[in-house]
Amino acid sequence: MVMNPYRLRKRLFAFILAASAGLCVLDSSAWAETRKFSMTIEDTVVTLVDKQTFRTFSFNGQTPGPLLHVTEGDDLEVAVENQTTLPHTIHWHGMLQRGTWKMDGVPDATQPAIAPGETFTYRFKAEPSGTMWYHCHVNVNEHVAMRGMWGPLIVDPKTPPAIEKEVTKDYIMMFSSWVSSWSQKPGQGGIPGDEADYFTLNGKAFPDTQPLRIKQGDVVRIRLIGAGDELHSIHIHGHLLEVYAKDGRPLPNPIMVDTILLGPGERYDLILRADNPGIWMVHDHIDRHTVNGKSPMGGIMTTIEYEEIPVKDQAFYSWKNKNFVPDFFYEESLKKPLGMHESAAFKGVPAP
Amino acid sequence: MVMNPYRLRKRLFAFILAASAGLCVLDSSAWAETRKFSMTIEDTVVTLVDKQTFRTFSFNGQTPGPLLHVTEGDDLEVAVENQTTLPHTIHWHGMLQRGTWKMDGVPDATQPAIAPGETFTYRFKAEPSGTMWYHCHVNVNEHVAMRGMWGPLIVDPKTPPAIEKEVTKDYIMMFSSWVSSWSQKPGQGGIPGDEADYFTLNGKAFPDTQPLRIKQGDVVRIRLIGAGDELHSIHIHGHLLEVYAKDGRPLPNPIMVDTILLGPGERYDLILRADNPGIWMVHDHIDRHTVNGKSPMGGIMTTIEYEEIPVKDQAFYSWKNKNFVPDFFYEESLKKPLGMHESAAFKGVPAP
Amino acid sequence: MVMNPYRLRKRLFAFILAASAGLCVLDSSAWAETRKFSMTIEDTVVTLVDKQTFRTFSFNGQTPGPLLHVTEGDDLEVAVENQTTLPHTIHWHGMLQRGTWKMDGVPDATQPAIAPGETFTYRFKAEPSGTMWYHCHVNVNEHVAMRGMWGPLIVDPKTPPAIEKEVTKDYIMMFSSWVSSWSQKPGQGGIPGDEADYFTLNGKAFPDTQPLRIKQGDVVRIRLIGAGDELHSIHIHGHLLEVYAKDGRPLPNPIMVDTILLGPGERYDLILRADNPGIWMVHDHIDRHTVNGKSPMGGIMTTIEYEEIPVKDQAFYSWKNKNFVPDFFYEESLKKPLGMHESAAFKGVPAP
Repeated sequence: MVMNPYRLRKRLFAFILAASAGLCVLDSSAWAETRKFSMTIEDTVVTLVDKQTFRTFSFNGQTPGPLLHVTEGDDLEVAVENQTTLPHTIHWHGMLQRGTWKMDGVPDATQPAIAPGETFTYRFKAEPSGTMWYHCHVNVNEHVAMRGMWGPLIVDPKTPPAIEKEVTKDYIMMFSSWVSSWSQKPGQGGIPGDEADYFTLNGKAFPDTQPLRIKQGDVVRIRLIGAGDELHSIHIHGHLLEVYAKDGRPLPNPIMVDTILLGPGERYDLILRADNPGIWMVHDHIDRHTVNGKSPMGGIMTTIEYEEIPVKDQAFYSWKNKNFVPDFFYEESLKKPLGMHESAAFKGVPAP
Repeated sequence: MVMNPYRLRKRLFAFILAASAGLCVLDSSAWAETRKFSMTIEDTVVTLVDKQTFRTFSFNGQTPGPLLHVTEGDDLEVAVENQTTLPHTIHWHGMLQRGTWKMDGVPDATQPAIAPGETFTYRFKAEPSGTMWYHCHVNVNEHVAMRGMWGPLIVDPKTPPAIEKEVTKDYIMMFSSWVSSWSQKPGQGGIPGDEADYFTLNGKAFPDTQPLRIKQGDVVRIRLIGAGDELHSIHIHGHLLEVYAKDGRPLPNPIMVDTILLGPGERYDLILRADNPGIWMVHDHIDRHTVNGKSPMGGIMTTIEYEEIPVKDQAFYSWKNKNFVPDFFYEESLKKPLGMHESAAFKGVPAP
Repeated sequence: MVMNPYRLRKRLFAFILAASAGLCVLDSSAWAETRKFSMTIEDTVVTLVDKQTFRTFSFNGQTPGPLLHVTEGDDLEVAVENQTTLPHTIHWHGMLQRGTWKMDGVPDATQPAIAPGETFTYRFKAEPSGTMWYHCHVNVNEHVAMRGMWGPLIVDPKTPPAIEKEVTKDYIMMFSSWVSSWSQKPGQGGIPGDEADYFTLNGKAFPDTQPLRIKQGDVVRIRLIGAGDELHSIHIHGHLLEVYAKDGRPLPNPIMVDTILLGPGERYDLILRADNPGIWMVHDHIDRHTVNGKSPMGGIMTTIEYEEIPVKDQAFYSWKNKNFVPDFFYEESLKKPLGMHESAAFKGVPAP
């Protein structure tokens, strides 16, 4: 399109006016992109740790589900095909759904559940920005609490605050718990009397979790998402963490912590300024969440490894020869162009 | 800065005026009203949902107990008659009890428990303002956790902050959990090994809860009260909520959330600006709190219904023909003159 | 006030000097003291309440372990001798361990565990200031959750904020829970299915806890430490508490509460201005935490006693003739010179 100088000047003038009014930011249609995605819900078998498998209804066959990474104001279209034998929906936790309440994904309240074999297309604007997530809203006591039906939805702000521009490494951590007695009985479980005995970070329990690899000078953003049924009290060693945002919204007065309590559904964004080379634990301080079944030193534990410290030289380090699986925190995907990203780290296998 | 005598005198005068006005506010006796109430503690049978009944020691035969709605600085007299066969007290959670520690309602610490058949009169000043509550302090592991001995105490501030004057709808939500194996055994239960299997909002579980009916433009205040034994992670769809107050005290820097974690005894006041017509879920994101016994899609769930959306037209909506019971959140009572208000929505029947 | 140019210049000069001195404070090496301590880990039997004993691996034979009270910037050396038959470490929760990550006390990540009979010396700088704690990091599901392996580490700031100078009484409260079925089986327990049935404040359950004795005008600091496996919702009657610090860091905008939710590993410092003489309950509002086994009115409960109220005159007060054990909250030790302090209140006996 060729634009004559007069029109250009006129537009520029209008833009300046609008910007002055702040209206520019609100007028999302001028900037919005339409992003179309397809997702499936599949009968899947995931492995939590070692030989402990679990039957799930995973999005695209993985738990966590694929990363949806978009910009504030984008128009999303997500076609969801239910390939399982039970009804499901997707609720986009944190999305305001202004004017689109029927896209909110609550069965028998905003839509009929998506029947087996059917496809439903969600259409909504990505608003507001921040660390959001999505999950099924049918029988949440089972589907969300124990069948791995959740994934991250990251909405970048249109005009990122200064601190967000500083970030050099970006990690997503989704927490959940599992009741192994129901592991092979999809469609059942999540009832009073259940005893969770496996506890996972992005669907895996220690030692099958992965380290965060950073270096001095990094500004690390860690996005905590309470995806499961239980609380988690996350402690990160060797650093003070700035609690930057809650539920996607930056706090007016950030606080500094070394331990943060996270409830189901809540999200916290932490900023860690990497200034202390070492190998540092990251774990749930709810002590019973650090077992795998009856074995201690499992569950929700991982480490931060500074590249200044060669891990192979640390004779005592149990992960010194660990097989590193990248993108375990979607840290690679978050650097890719906006869109939908799967991670091989989370893939299960089709249920038999 | 040099100040000439005239300006100094003028300033001093202004200060004295301001100080007088300030003192006036502090001098509560000039404004206080004495409010006298009578309450009973009764052997009651309440219904949590469907056919699930529970033996309680309810205040005035209802759970939650009657709303006490007063103004900061009022002198309260509450005569409490214990009509059950077990000892009880009332603790006024949040009241400072300045100079009246023997009115604090703790058995064997501030008073002997009220014996069966006896009446004790609590006399204290309503201070400070905010969302408060009352509950028995005898054997709290049973009486508070499972026998419905709690109700709301709302103390209006004498000089309400601007935001409180904006409020057009005011709702009270009290959360609790129940162990059905003890349902018919009053005087027992609340012990290690108990498994809560019913979870209620104002004493009822979904689908026997009630919707919040609001309209665009409303400024909705939602008062969350952790009345029971468990935590709750309350998620409200389609809106960002301002966390306005904690334990009755306005926060110096309110934060915005979509999910809020609430511990036993805690209160949060949320402000929701109704700008998004639709039908919106309100529920506990602790997934296991959304069952009734072993049945999913129960427990702590309700909806917000905007009057702009005719619910009868929504074919998929499970509550489209619901029998609406008003005052389920004391929303009608809160508009009445100050005093004590019962709600028919919470009434049980006398125990046999 | 009129200021002549000379005085102004003099003031500016003084300010620059003071500012330089302020920088000096940051140069901690100039002020740091080296503090050397020796600690043992011992097979111990503690008594939680009445006749309920528990086998622990206690630091110096007591739970909580000895108070370490130091100043920000001090160089600590703690020689830890493991006298038990199982491996252990000490993690110094909250310490940044700048440049000393191998002193962080995590087995197989920062060091090999300390084998039975061996001694390991931790050397690190006390940084940052605040309410910190230490605990074993081996098999935390058992050792921390149920074997009493924790104690307080208080790091005074070099330049205390004004409010900290006002403090007249200083109390430490460490919360934990216990599963009595494992009480006599050290090296086992802390597994899914466990049901905690004892709940303690500084290792004791009511009525074997101790009151806080204060007087009008006191500025009371209460340091809450989530030392165990469960959450606690601490309610203090008759006062509004200022939440002064979280994890040792003063909050930018303190909030006022009457109830505070505390997760495992978290610390909150509360400031209570003693202005309301009486006898006041302090207790966990998670109701099930106020039992001893199956008996109600136990667990995490105590009182604040104002000396203006003679407790012996309160006929109804169950503690009116209580045998007072001092230093139950390290309130005496915190007034002593910096160093390591044991408290007779917490001593167990050697395991047979």
